[in-house]
Amino acid sequence: MHLELQSGALPTSCLIQNMRLGIAQLNTTVGDLSGNRRKILDAYHALVAQGAELVVFPELVVCGYPPRDLLFKSRFIPDVAQTTREIAAEIGAVPAVIGTIEANPTGQGRSAYNSAAFCQHGHITQFARKCLLPTYDVFDEDRYFEPAKEPTIVEFNGRRLGLTICEDIWTHQAITTRRFYEVDPVKTLSTKRLDLLLNLSASPWHSTKENVRHELVAHTARACACPVVYVNAIGGNDELIFDGRSMITDASGQLLAGLAAFREELRVVQVGRTVPGEPPYTHATFAPHELRDIHDALVLGLRDYAQKTGFKKALLGLSGGIDSALTAVIAAEALGPKNVIGVSLPSVISSQHSKDDARILAQNLGIEYHTIGIADTVASAEQALAPIFAGRARDIAEENIQARARGLLLMAISNKFGALLLTTGNKSELAVGYCTLYGDMCGGLAVISDVFKMQVYALSRWINREKEIIPASSIEKPPSAELRPDQTDQDSLPPYELLDAILKGYVEAGLSRRDLIAQGFDAAVVNDIARKVDLNEYKRKQAAPGLKITPLAFGVGRRIPIVQKYVS
Amino acid sequence: MHLELQSGALPTSCLIQNMRLGIAQLNTTVGDLSGNRRKILDAYHALVAQGAELVVFPELVVCGYPPRDLLFKSRFIPDVAQTTREIAAEIGAVPAVIGTIEANPTGQGRSAYNSAAFCQHGHITQFARKCLLPTYDVFDEDRYFEPAKEPTIVEFNGRRLGLTICEDIWTHQAITTRRFYEVDPVKTLSTKRLDLLLNLSASPWHSTKENVRHELVAHTARACACPVVYVNAIGGNDELIFDGRSMITDASGQLLAGLAAFREELRVVQVGRTVPGEPPYTHATFAPHELRDIHDALVLGLRDYAQKTGFKKALLGLSGGIDSALTAVIAAEALGPKNVIGVSLPSVISSQHSKDDARILAQNLGIEYHTIGIADTVASAEQALAPIFAGRARDIAEENIQARARGLLLMAISNKFGALLLTTGNKSELAVGYCTLYGDMCGGLAVISDVFKMQVYALSRWINREKEIIPASSIEKPPSAELRPDQTDQDSLPPYELLDAILKGYVEAGLSRRDLIAQGFDAAVVNDIARKVDLNEYKRKQAAPGLKITPLAFGVGRRIPIVQKYVS
Repeated sequence: MHLELQSGALPTSCLIQNMRLGIAQLNTTVGDLSGNRRKILDAYHALVAQGAELVVFPELVVCGYPPRDLLFKSRFIPDVAQTTREIAAEIGAVPAVIGTIEANPTGQGRSAYNSAAFCQHGHITQFARKCLLPTYDVFDEDRYFEPAKEPTIVEFNGRRLGLTICEDIWTHQAITTRRFYEVDPVKTLSTKRLDLLLNLSASPWHSTKENVRHELVAHTARACACPVVYVNAIGGNDELIFDGRSMITDASGQLLAGLAAFREELRVVQVGRTVPGEPPYTHATFAPHELRDIHDALVLGLRDYAQKTGFKKALLGLSGGIDSALTAVIAAEALGPKNVIGVSLPSVISSQHSKDDARILAQNLGIEYHTIGIADTVASAEQALAPIFAGRARDIAEENIQARARGLLLMAISNKFGALLLTTGNKSELAVGYCTLYGDMCGGLAVISDVFKMQVYALSRWINREKEIIPASSIEKPPSAELRPDQTDQDSLPPYELLDAILKGYVEAGLSRRDLIAQGFDAAVVNDIARKVDLNEYKRKQAAPGLKITPLAFGVGRRIPIVQKYVS
Repeated sequence: MHLELQSGALPTSCLIQNMRLGIAQLNTTVGDLSGNRRKILDAYHALVAQGAELVVFPELVVCGYPPRDLLFKSRFIPDVAQTTREIAAEIGAVPAVIGTIEANPTGQGRSAYNSAAFCQHGHITQFARKCLLPTYDVFDEDRYFEPAKEPTIVEFNGRRLGLTICEDIWTHQAITTRRFYEVDPVKTLSTKRLDLLLNLSASPWHSTKENVRHELVAHTARACACPVVYVNAIGGNDELIFDGRSMITDASGQLLAGLAAFREELRVVQVGRTVPGEPPYTHATFAPHELRDIHDALVLGLRDYAQKTGFKKALLGLSGGIDSALTAVIAAEALGPKNVIGVSLPSVISSQHSKDDARILAQNLGIEYHTIGIADTVASAEQALAPIFAGRARDIAEENIQARARGLLLMAISNKFGALLLTTGNKSELAVGYCTLYGDMCGGLAVISDVFKMQVYALSRWINREKEIIPASSIEKPPSAELRPDQTDQDSLPPYELLDAILKGYVEAGLSRRDLIAQGFDAAVVNDIARKVDLNEYKRKQAAPGLKITPLAFGVGRRIPIVQKYVS
């Protein structure tokens, strides 16, 4: 998908013919005010040196997004304000528009605004406040911010710039299925004869969201009859992955430039017409590639989680199965193979092919590899429990002892070597609780907990597209937790294709059992799966944070009570 | 504190002289629509039989509070609406005011209102919608509901009843430190010459909140110059504990009746004047007793968590220390001693006095008691790790193996016997991460995770006020995790009195390091504690849900990013 660069006539309402805009698509760390200040100023100076006439940063770039309850710390708002003033002090004749927090001076309502600071000649000359505060999914902005009644227009060199922040442009009927807001900043701005509309965003990615955003920005440009500069954050912050993909469109919504996906970029883009001899702006960024995007997102999410928390090394258990294999591939790409430790923890039940597959994967990736048997630890635990378990049949308790012995050993290695333990469970398993709390759920980050099992297969095949990195047998053998002899996942679960389809309906779309049965799914299967999803909320409450790649991930964007009895 | 019952003259604007109000202070389960329907109707019929002329229920009593993202399930709102109609169908000439969810028919904004349904003669005759939607602390109502622009007045038998829901009356300047809202329902209602104001609440308790509420209700009565009927939910729902303490005041704010704390109660109260021969209404409910209240709250929270999730038995590790002792006392009261299993899990390091104290406590409580040694399990794990750990000194990794071996064994017992494992860590420990993830943090419910260590002492002494239930040596000996020989907590932490004071400032009040140092705390200690609190956010992310008893508990009401670098 390569769109033609529009070089010709613009609507007459657009007066910007030849302005060079600097876009700073930065990866900041939440709360790292001095580090973020340095990044912002470095980017500003670099873009000015490249000829930018105006430099635009993402939403809340000074404090990182989302700062969450840091906003309630007594000095956070003044500290961010102070940092913003320090940044402004170094801004020269070329103005910068910087996402930041502005204290609410009225003493009424929430303590702050989510604002854009227009800075020039050493000062903040104007603030533009966000009107629409998302309070759904992972967003809690009503908890923190006061909304503005209408968007702000800044006059600069005789040009009228409309300043909006993220959600302010998410009002198009075709895109948002429900209208949440009484005000429509785009509609307001469309009557103001703007020369340019800026949108400062921190818009977390989920699969295919980039296309929605592109449509939205194009719509906004057409509605306001002016070019739009959309600057998005990149980077991983806890569960959220920001993909960047900043963009500029002309007044007709045609894409003039698309910035990189999943990495930082500084770019100067000329708005209005092209300069002869310059290559046309590229936007491969928006070419759809779902699997590559998911892969890149997970690599970024893991890398940032590790780097921003100070971990150089990661550690994971390698079962020989596909989930741990995929996680290992992502870890090796994120941190470098030499910083990844794979540990095989076979039990008496583990099959030879599982042990082989784990070892071959580690070889293929070039990661550190160890084998630690769990048989003695399991036997000792069972021995210790023998008096109290006397006369009772073996059951899930013994299966879980194996998983928890592995967790114990992996955490010991994590503690000893300062390596971040990764959990390797996928979304399908986590949904139905096919995982052991304090066992295979041990770890600081759940890399693929928002990836359904069928996507795990697709990603693994995509990773193997040129050569076999993940052993083919890990992909092809029947999946098994290997906690009982000859166990397969399908002893207790329907085929993953069916399971995933039901989970997408029940978990992601919020459909009821009745809805799903009406769609043709088997009632017994639906009831069993729905019951398992509901029952296992307590496990997910204690799960590691997981990287979000779908519109609805387990975690901060899904808030189901643990104790509840709703059956629909 | 016993307030005199006002039996004399009421302000002339109040026309209610002799109305019998039925208050249904119920404990519902979130999402249990058929169970809640039964409870509501049973309460209605009982109160009508006792002569009630109007029956009032708590906020969202039909679906339980808080339903959270159940509201996003496709059939939840229609199912609640249908249940409400079924309830209304059984309401006779005596009306009932029932907290429920009302679908938003406009297609604009959020899908629902948080409403009170006024039901009579088999129908819902009117809805009153909540105006003020709390979106702070544990509350996320902006995520779910549309606000009403103003409160609703219902005319009934020639009387004007003002209907408000919970937050609608939380606007008094003296009580709420910041004004969050542009509308003030109490102010609006104060101009409407009401005969009676109803408030349907689901107001979760924290220590001493009952006095704030009393003041608020009294203020509301005076502002509106009419009696106020305040009906609160009771019961535990996940982290939240609702204390009930429904009340009625006369128009001067004088308390006419206070219902029970921490238990269900149905009561008919005559508003306006007393009937000769009836005893004066009691309200021991509002006599301050902080320790008893915390104790009663924790017992209720644990009992409801277990009962509503279907656990009959609870299980916990008994270390001989004060935290597990206090947790065991609460568990024995909540579930009965015969349903509590205490397990001592001594290591080679465990002192004899710890083992003795654990055993004596179990005897004192009459709970089931077992001893399981962990030495062999720990030795097997260390043996398995020996090759990979070769040449490295013993450190925290080995200490954690002990804690995790205990977790593994306790979870095996929990799995085998279907007993809910309780974690026993206190708020001070959880704040600074003085606990082992997947070790002593294992468990489905954290009973005292919102109780500071100094409060643990105070509660334990209060429990022993008549006889020694918790062994005195558990209270008096220097606290120790016993993960190293001769270890005490104060090897790595300041004295608990100091630690708790710093934590109250840093965690609960949101004070900065600078603020605390300015208050006179030692800078090195403050920096060390603040760093530990920040670093251990990842542990708390995976902690069991904990019962909330303070204004700011770890959990759903405190949302700090894991990856963040803010230092203030």
